[in-house]
Amino acid sequence: MGPHPAVAAIRLAVRRVLHDIATGQAAEHGSTAHGSGGHGAVAVAHRTGGPSTAQRHRGPAPATAPLVLVACSGGADSMALASALAFEAPRLGLRAGGVTVDHGLQPGSALRADEVALRLRELGLAPVESVAVTVGRDGGPEAAARDARYAALDAAAERHGAAAVLLGHTRDDQAETVLLGLARGSGIRSLSGMAAVSGADGRYRRPFLQLDRQTARKACLVQSLSVWDDPHNTDPAYTRSRLRHEGLPALEKALGKGVVEALARTAQLSRDDADALDAWAGQAESSVRDAEGVLECAKLYALPPAVRRRVLRRAAIEAGAPAGSLFARHIEEMDRLITGWRGQGAINLPGKVVAQRQGGRLVIRQG
Amino acid sequence: MGPHPAVAAIRLAVRRVLHDIATGQAAEHGSTAHGSGGHGAVAVAHRTGGPSTAQRHRGPAPATAPLVLVACSGGADSMALASALAFEAPRLGLRAGGVTVDHGLQPGSALRADEVALRLRELGLAPVESVAVTVGRDGGPEAAARDARYAALDAAAERHGAAAVLLGHTRDDQAETVLLGLARGSGIRSLSGMAAVSGADGRYRRPFLQLDRQTARKACLVQSLSVWDDPHNTDPAYTRSRLRHEGLPALEKALGKGVVEALARTAQLSRDDADALDAWAGQAESSVRDAEGVLECAKLYALPPAVRRRVLRRAAIEAGAPAGSLFARHIEEMDRLITGWRGQGAINLPGKVVAQRQGGRLVIRQG
Repeated sequence: MGPHPAVAAIRLAVRRVLHDIATGQAAEHGSTAHGSGGHGAVAVAHRTGGPSTAQRHRGPAPATAPLVLVACSGGADSMALASALAFEAPRLGLRAGGVTVDHGLQPGSALRADEVALRLRELGLAPVESVAVTVGRDGGPEAAARDARYAALDAAAERHGAAAVLLGHTRDDQAETVLLGLARGSGIRSLSGMAAVSGADGRYRRPFLQLDRQTARKACLVQSLSVWDDPHNTDPAYTRSRLRHEGLPALEKALGKGVVEALARTAQLSRDDADALDAWAGQAESSVRDAEGVLECAKLYALPPAVRRRVLRRAAIEAGAPAGSLFARHIEEMDRLITGWRGQGAINLPGKVVAQRQGGRLVIRQG
Repeated sequence: MGPHPAVAAIRLAVRRVLHDIATGQAAEHGSTAHGSGGHGAVAVAHRTGGPSTAQRHRGPAPATAPLVLVACSGGADSMALASALAFEAPRLGLRAGGVTVDHGLQPGSALRADEVALRLRELGLAPVESVAVTVGRDGGPEAAARDARYAALDAAAERHGAAAVLLGHTRDDQAETVLLGLARGSGIRSLSGMAAVSGADGRYRRPFLQLDRQTARKACLVQSLSVWDDPHNTDPAYTRSRLRHEGLPALEKALGKGVVEALARTAQLSRDDADALDAWAGQAESSVRDAEGVLECAKLYALPPAVRRRVLRRAAIEAGAPAGSLFARHIEEMDRLITGWRGQGAINLPGKVVAQRQGGRLVIRQG
């Protein structure tokens, strides 16, 4: 008799990612993108079962084997991930370790982090460390905690020479991220959620991005893994928490149970679309500049609006406007210098950048 | 003293569209796209106040003047639209008429349609007609009613030789449409909502797509226009009604009041992005076929995933697959013949279309 279906599901998800790491591949785009059903599973069974450069080991991996770390908060998602990593890594000739970050935001958080580290060791992970960070204030509490966490994970990965760091984000987290992006209304890039592979050299991997939270919880339950529920996750002071416990359930009630899956699929499709359009804008940018490198309005006008706006955005950032402060309305106002010209004056952009039409040229520079 | 701000807002929205119709322009893309604030208003005031081929008339337009019809259900949105059309059309030398559609779905609907027609005549619209339709069953009750309605509006527009038909969809309707598209999870085209200009020769115009429902209601109130509340709009049996009364308010509660505006902006940005990518796929399609017109796998592989999937979709439709039955998973499966080739067999697509890799070629044909 095989493992419980939930345990099989989390292990399969991790095995696919570890297989890529063991064979030195980037995540295969097509098969990881939308594998909600049997196809992906069949493809992987075939791949890991067939001839492969990664062999199936039974004992622990040698000390020289590549190391994969799991970032673990002690919550159900990342505990399930840690358990699957502990099971699968040695079978693919990889070492498995863990990191837990103590954000120091709640009383007793240091003790709790030590307890999580203990549980990771009990799963057989090594090395395991608990890292304390200081959370700043930039960009709000959620963003500041995230920045501190990733800095600590980056440092831990460097310190241990890890080949990858696994993150426990599930399809439900992805759906929430898409809705948060939707609320910004700043276009399809902000709908593209979290990437399956991200960070320097594709260090961060999210094996559970197609897996629902319920499966991760179930896998912890049937493996008798005790998990910790972060009170922040149910605190209505946090936007994501409100979304999780009120917004998304109401949306599911109105639109049906498939909403989370639809949002996750939207993320992947939007990401690919945004990538393609960014590539187009990158190519177009050089073709719309004159010999001195100044943008020519007639050539900009001839571009599709979606490409033109991206070229304008790139040009503004290149001139010194901070990307994070550049909103859709700024781009729209620049665009009207091209498509709705009626003698407007110079347009002020963030970072003291000024965009101005001069004859048939669009001059964008820091003032 | 000018009109109430709500009345000024609905008139301005209609004036912009009528100006385009009077001068024979398609809706100007850039300035109608995101004009949520002062910019659009200033631009239009400038345009309609400045030299223009459309002149300001005071009397009724001559019988030979172009006719603009309003599609009016008797609800607040379309009654507000009708009142603004009645006010603005003669000033731009246009005739204004109205059509109300009796869907025959509720007892007394014929009487009510006659009452709506009477109110439209009282506003000074001519011609005005009430058209009874028979609603079928195809695609569910909402889709069937919509199909019957547009068929009736098309026929009325032809009968009267109308230059345009105005529809009362507001920014709130647009936000709901984006969420309905999101629930399908089929990519950015389904996020692009309703177009400001659509139908044969751009017949249908939606002047209120940037205007909130509250403004339309207020405009009716201050103009003492009685309006009819369609019980369907609050019937929880309808997805859109559940979304309007439960889903969207919950989302606003979680994410903040700007959600509706953000969704409407997402619609416009997604539409432009989808248009650009469709254009790219259209160009790419011819470059990835061999001399016999068969798709070459190596060339498909080299395309960005977003473009490749669109090429595959186009090719499947061209081979006879009905567009409406072709889902993301079909395209994904075809894509794996290119990006995840491991000797898969033929793939069955809707409309008895079969996609099969034969050597370096992808053959798609009706079986």
